[in-house]
Amino acid sequence: MTDVDFCVIGGGFAGLTAALRLKQMGRSVALLEARDRLGGRTFTQVRDDGSWIDRGGAWIGPGQDRIRALMTEFGVASYKQYTGGEAMMVVDGKQHRYTGTIPWTMSPWAAMNLGAVFLELGHMCKSVPLEAPWAAKKADKWDQVSLAHWLEANVLSKPAHDLLETAIAGCYTSAASEVSLLFVLYQMASGGGPSFVLGVKDAAQDARPIGGMGAIYRPMAAELGDAIHLSQPVRCIHQDDSGVTVRATDLRVRARRAIVTVPLAVAGQISYKPMLPADRMFLHQRMPSGAIIKVSVVYDEPFWRADGLSGQSAAPGSPATITIDACTDTGRPGVLCVVVEGPIARQLARLDETERRRAILDALVERFGRKAGAPVDYLEQDWSAERYSGGGMLSHAPTGVLTQFGHALREPCGRIHWAGTESSAVMCGWIDGAIRSGERAASEVLEHETAAVG
Amino acid sequence: MTDVDFCVIGGGFAGLTAALRLKQMGRSVALLEARDRLGGRTFTQVRDDGSWIDRGGAWIGPGQDRIRALMTEFGVASYKQYTGGEAMMVVDGKQHRYTGTIPWTMSPWAAMNLGAVFLELGHMCKSVPLEAPWAAKKADKWDQVSLAHWLEANVLSKPAHDLLETAIAGCYTSAASEVSLLFVLYQMASGGGPSFVLGVKDAAQDARPIGGMGAIYRPMAAELGDAIHLSQPVRCIHQDDSGVTVRATDLRVRARRAIVTVPLAVAGQISYKPMLPADRMFLHQRMPSGAIIKVSVVYDEPFWRADGLSGQSAAPGSPATITIDACTDTGRPGVLCVVVEGPIARQLARLDETERRRAILDALVERFGRKAGAPVDYLEQDWSAERYSGGGMLSHAPTGVLTQFGHALREPCGRIHWAGTESSAVMCGWIDGAIRSGERAASEVLEHETAAVG
Repeated sequence: MTDVDFCVIGGGFAGLTAALRLKQMGRSVALLEARDRLGGRTFTQVRDDGSWIDRGGAWIGPGQDRIRALMTEFGVASYKQYTGGEAMMVVDGKQHRYTGTIPWTMSPWAAMNLGAVFLELGHMCKSVPLEAPWAAKKADKWDQVSLAHWLEANVLSKPAHDLLETAIAGCYTSAASEVSLLFVLYQMASGGGPSFVLGVKDAAQDARPIGGMGAIYRPMAAELGDAIHLSQPVRCIHQDDSGVTVRATDLRVRARRAIVTVPLAVAGQISYKPMLPADRMFLHQRMPSGAIIKVSVVYDEPFWRADGLSGQSAAPGSPATITIDACTDTGRPGVLCVVVEGPIARQLARLDETERRRAILDALVERFGRKAGAPVDYLEQDWSAERYSGGGMLSHAPTGVLTQFGHALREPCGRIHWAGTESSAVMCGWIDGAIRSGERAASEVLEHETAAVG
Repeated sequence: MTDVDFCVIGGGFAGLTAALRLKQMGRSVALLEARDRLGGRTFTQVRDDGSWIDRGGAWIGPGQDRIRALMTEFGVASYKQYTGGEAMMVVDGKQHRYTGTIPWTMSPWAAMNLGAVFLELGHMCKSVPLEAPWAAKKADKWDQVSLAHWLEANVLSKPAHDLLETAIAGCYTSAASEVSLLFVLYQMASGGGPSFVLGVKDAAQDARPIGGMGAIYRPMAAELGDAIHLSQPVRCIHQDDSGVTVRATDLRVRARRAIVTVPLAVAGQISYKPMLPADRMFLHQRMPSGAIIKVSVVYDEPFWRADGLSGQSAAPGSPATITIDACTDTGRPGVLCVVVEGPIARQLARLDETERRRAILDALVERFGRKAGAPVDYLEQDWSAERYSGGGMLSHAPTGVLTQFGHALREPCGRIHWAGTESSAVMCGWIDGAIRSGERAASEVLEHETAAVG
């Protein structure tokens, strides 16, 4: 039995941040992580040549001040995402190279549609209050329909429709039919609007930390030292009048309060005694994770750059749906990151390893030429196979959930407080949101302490 | 360590049926139930005076042949639901008494709307193939929107809209905004159409077993004898090449195959090793249960009958949203069953016991007169507070779920087979569906046995 002030469940950015801030305030903390590694839905792997690959969350963008603050704290510099050359859209097998956000070369009608939808989504986002999206004037209406329904009714050009569906639903790693329109607007608004979410330069994929996300979470872990307990999946959290008892595989932690930072579907697998209030229990049942496979294909050099390409491409329906240049700051080796999300990710996961690799490399060859077929390394990360993520990247809200149960996202349940990027009103869904949520939860438990003393 | 042919998880009707059929075929079975009682989402309580109350599922109707077969097997007779006198609709505080299905006295326009919607829903239901609702011609379209969206677009009269929303969404014990239109059509079709689902006489509330559901599940349990293990919540199911190992609180069962019969959100709390295929894991995250409080208000006699009322009433927005006569076959004592579902059930659950009782009795007095305020007994059953149901009555599919993940409802995952009413193509959501699913799962595991021998 470990006795501490506070117990933090989950060793992703939310949990590490909460634990770190509490430790820095002189409190004793135990952080329980189910896996044998830290980072949660981020995971930086260092290769033998010293280069590093982010197998999960990787990018940062403007407005993400809290991750910037952590980087400053631990002396981690950043570098800009490579955006030289042209991006590519593949529609009906035809490749369109373009620069900027909108692929005008595709067809003027499709491009106009895309532009109009961006404007409209941006306009709608502005009416969603981040702290209470369920209070938006049209919240009930928007929470009755899925993103798929809205796109079908509002995007007349088929290529534009397919691109938007791939790009937007991809953010939720699920089919567009699964995600509430209100949730999409809220999550976009939380990052600053559709241009931020879907953009690269000066947007959500603007830059990366040198050394990858591990360059931030590893020194956080070092500072936390023996407060961290790996391979300790939490089974049960018991609350009583004076504190909580958290039971993990072979550890029992007694603390005044607990902060649960794991994704909602995973939080729902913990047994709570007494039971959580119904709305929180139901929220755990109602915010699923999606499917995402992130493949890092490593070449000697980023050959696409010499061909005038940025490496960024989108091809709805392809097994290599989205690609983006994922080289380190040195630009060597060449790393092309392939992101496959939602229904296609689930299809690909059913193939055997060889078939999947072939399907992806074939698509890359078609898009980037023969060189793409001969990588020196190939790393797959299927987040659906990560038991303690329960999928990736972020939990989404189906229709009717935000308006009914959204209030429970941050409301503490007795001595249990909630963090994780899904609970952040600002940058919900990004690593920065996870960090914000960790800092908020740490403040919450400290405020209760003061209140108790007062 | 208990060694048996098959292990069944969950002691509701699905699990009891599966175990019973296997035992009757000469196989050894262990049935693990998490609670200290059987019945699952049914629960018959016998009162001191010998009368009985169904605190959960209670009714049977035409077409429910498998529960009829069980009743015959165990010598359980049935009696007709009381439908004498007039039913009542309360709209904007005004009471409308009527007979038949449609409250014509309400307003001709509203009644016409109700009638038209029933016809339209019935028509749509006919195009949904029960074994594969995702193959309906308009499946994608219907799975993009919620019931709420469809009602708003198709029911112009506000009173008709509110009644339909209460009645239909009530079936899923959730808000209409949460439930996929395709799922509503499928579930209705599974029972034979909207008139079956929403009707009483010759429909889903046509009759009841004498003695309540317990009169069926108790003799089933007696026949199973020491195969049943109560208070054994299952933590983990481990599959290997030769069988499964099921770990419960203080029991380990080794079997050739397992049948999991618990609601989907509860099945998602079990740890599976190896992990389940992604689609089944995601299904567990995506089919939530709803909120339902069933209150049995007991009087010396069913005084409403003498007043020319059937006891059946619907009052959208009221804390006593739905009422129905729930007397035993003898008609004494008088039992009025109050059903509160979805958002109102969650609101009511937040009141303290006294306030909630007052709110409900006040509503009954307004509807049925002063006698309703002086019950001799008052029994509440809040299914959201049942840890091992995770809510009630049935799990629903939000938008996009049936078309993407519906195929996983019945597909075995290696040596794990799935039952529970949600997995039944016929009478999905009713006790009869649970029984069918148990019989199907029992057949499945026996077929594998034959295949292995052959």
